[in-house]
Amino acid sequence: MSACKTRTTLLLNWYANPYHTPIFIAKELGFYEKEGLHLAILEPNDPSDVTEIVGLGSVDYALKAMIHTIAAKTKGFDVISIGTLLDEPPTGLISKPEAKISTFEDLKGKRVGYIGHFGKIIVDDLFAQGGLKPTDYKAVRVGMHLIEALKQDVVDTGIGFVNFQKVECEHLFNGANFLRIDELAGLGCCCFCSVMLIGNAKKIEQNSEQTHALMRATQRAAAFTTENPEEAFKILCRAKPELNTSLQQKIFMRTLPFFSRNLLNVERDWEKVGAYTRHLKVAAEDFDQSVCYTNQYIPTIPYSDQKPVGCAL
Amino acid sequence: MSACKTRTTLLLNWYANPYHTPIFIAKELGFYEKEGLHLAILEPNDPSDVTEIVGLGSVDYALKAMIHTIAAKTKGFDVISIGTLLDEPPTGLISKPEAKISTFEDLKGKRVGYIGHFGKIIVDDLFAQGGLKPTDYKAVRVGMHLIEALKQDVVDTGIGFVNFQKVECEHLFNGANFLRIDELAGLGCCCFCSVMLIGNAKKIEQNSEQTHALMRATQRAAAFTTENPEEAFKILCRAKPELNTSLQQKIFMRTLPFFSRNLLNVERDWEKVGAYTRHLKVAAEDFDQSVCYTNQYIPTIPYSDQKPVGCAL
Repeated sequence: MSACKTRTTLLLNWYANPYHTPIFIAKELGFYEKEGLHLAILEPNDPSDVTEIVGLGSVDYALKAMIHTIAAKTKGFDVISIGTLLDEPPTGLISKPEAKISTFEDLKGKRVGYIGHFGKIIVDDLFAQGGLKPTDYKAVRVGMHLIEALKQDVVDTGIGFVNFQKVECEHLFNGANFLRIDELAGLGCCCFCSVMLIGNAKKIEQNSEQTHALMRATQRAAAFTTENPEEAFKILCRAKPELNTSLQQKIFMRTLPFFSRNLLNVERDWEKVGAYTRHLKVAAEDFDQSVCYTNQYIPTIPYSDQKPVGCAL
Repeated sequence: MSACKTRTTLLLNWYANPYHTPIFIAKELGFYEKEGLHLAILEPNDPSDVTEIVGLGSVDYALKAMIHTIAAKTKGFDVISIGTLLDEPPTGLISKPEAKISTFEDLKGKRVGYIGHFGKIIVDDLFAQGGLKPTDYKAVRVGMHLIEALKQDVVDTGIGFVNFQKVECEHLFNGANFLRIDELAGLGCCCFCSVMLIGNAKKIEQNSEQTHALMRATQRAAAFTTENPEEAFKILCRAKPELNTSLQQKIFMRTLPFFSRNLLNVERDWEKVGAYTRHLKVAAEDFDQSVCYTNQYIPTIPYSDQKPVGCAL
C-alpha cells in the first residue's frame, strides 16, 4: 500500500506529550502522507540516547534541545538542526510548595534532579556560580521521571519546563515553585531549551527533497495546532488516548504560547547558546555554533492549513 | 498619592478584549506602578481614530496594526512602533457556515465588511487581483461590529482575526468559514496585522526613560500572561468583569500562540509589509519602512516575572 511512499523515522526527545502535538497532527491529518512520507514516530526510554542515535544515522530525524544539539556536534556526532518546534519554553528548578525553595540560597543542602549528563553540567555550573560547593547539594539523575522522584521524596527539586513538569507538579502537589535557569545563569532567554527538529547531517544532504517535504508538513501542522487548538488536542488524543486527561489538556494549553509557527532557527538564540556552551567548556573557545543549524528546509510558502485560493502579488 | 508617578496614556486599538491581556496584567499587578508610571488605558470608539490621535500627540502610546502604522507614517503622522504585542495573528474573511464562502470565487456578489479606510483598500485590491469588478461585490464599513453585522444580515463576510472574530462567529453561528487574507494576497505571512505598541515619535524621544519603563513592565506582563495563562485570564476579568464568559475565555486561549513574549519588532515582517503598502500604493515607491519602528526600548534583561536571584555569566 505504501510502496510509493518514502519510509523515514523521527525520534521524539521525550515520551509523547502535548508539546509534540504538531508532529502527531501532521501524522493524523495525513500531511506527511500527502508529502509522500511514511513517517514512523519513535519514543526514547532515555532522552540522553537521542543525539547519539541520530549521529550514528540509525534514525533520520529527531527532536532535541538547542543546547544538546550543540553538545552533540562538539562530541563529533553528525547532527544538524533544521528548525524549531518549541520556542524558548522557560525552564527551571521545580519543587513542591512545602519545600519552600524560592531563592537560590534555599537550594543549599538540597537534592537536585537532573535529566542526563548535560543537565548535570548545567546544575554544577549554576551552583558553583552561586557560591555553593559540590558538597552543598546532591545531584540525582532522574531522566524523564522528575515528578515520580518528587513524589517518592528522592529529590527536593529538579529541572523541567514551565509548560510541562511545572504543570504536573501543580496538579499533584497543589502548587509548584519555579526558579528559572536562564535567570540563575544570567542568560537572558530560555533558548538553550528550545526544542529543535534535528537530523543526521549527511542523510539530510542526501535526502534533501524528503527533508523539504517533512518541514512543509510539520509547518502546516504547527499552523493547524495554533489556529485550531481544541481540535488539535482532540486529534492528539485520538493518536495517544492516554493523553485524554484534564492534566494533559492543561499542559497542552500552557504549551500554546511556545509552539513555533514558522519553525525558523533563530540566529540570536543560537549565538547566545553557543556562548553558553563555550562558557560551560562543553564547546571549545573557537567553536562556531553556526555549523549546527540551517534554515534552508523551512518552507517559503505561507504556513497555514489552507491552500492559497487567490492571486499572488 | 501618585504625585511621584509619571502620568501617561495608552490608547487600545479596539474595545478591551483578551488579546490586550498583557496591558491589563501590567496594570493590575502594579508593574507599571513599580516602574513609576501612572498609565491611563483608553479605548477608542472608532479604531480608525487611533493613529491620528497618536500622531497629533493627544495620547502618548497606542496599539495599532503594522500596516496602519506604515500608512499613518506615509500620511505624515509622527508615529513609531516600539514593539510587538501580537505576532502575526492570522487575519481573514469570516463568514457563517451557511454562506458557503470557502473559495475566492464564492465571494462574487457578496457584501464584504471592512473595519475602516485601510481595510477598504485591502479588500478592493484583493478583489481586483482576483479578477472581480467593483460591481461584483459590495464593501460595507462595519468598524468594530462585524459579528453584529453578520447577525443582522448586513454583510455576508468581513475581516477579522482567527483568534477573535472567528471564535465569536463559531460561538454565535455554530461554525465559521475563514479565508486568509495573507494567502489571498500571496503575502506569505500575517505580519500586516501584527498588533504593535506605537507612540508619538517626538514624545517618545523626549520621554525616553518613561518609554523604557513602559516596555519593561509590558514585557514582564507578556511573560506572566504566557507562563500563567489561567491566572492571567482571571486577573483580566478582575479588571474587566464583562469578559468573564466562556466565549472570552476561548478567545483568550486562542490568542495564546500569538502573544509576543520578547515584544521585538521583526525586521523581516516590516520588510514584507513595507512591500505590501508600496504595492497598494499607500506608500511611495521609495518609501523605506525602517523609519516606522525601533527596538531601542525593548528590555535587554530576561523577560520573566521572576527577579534574577543568582549569578551572571
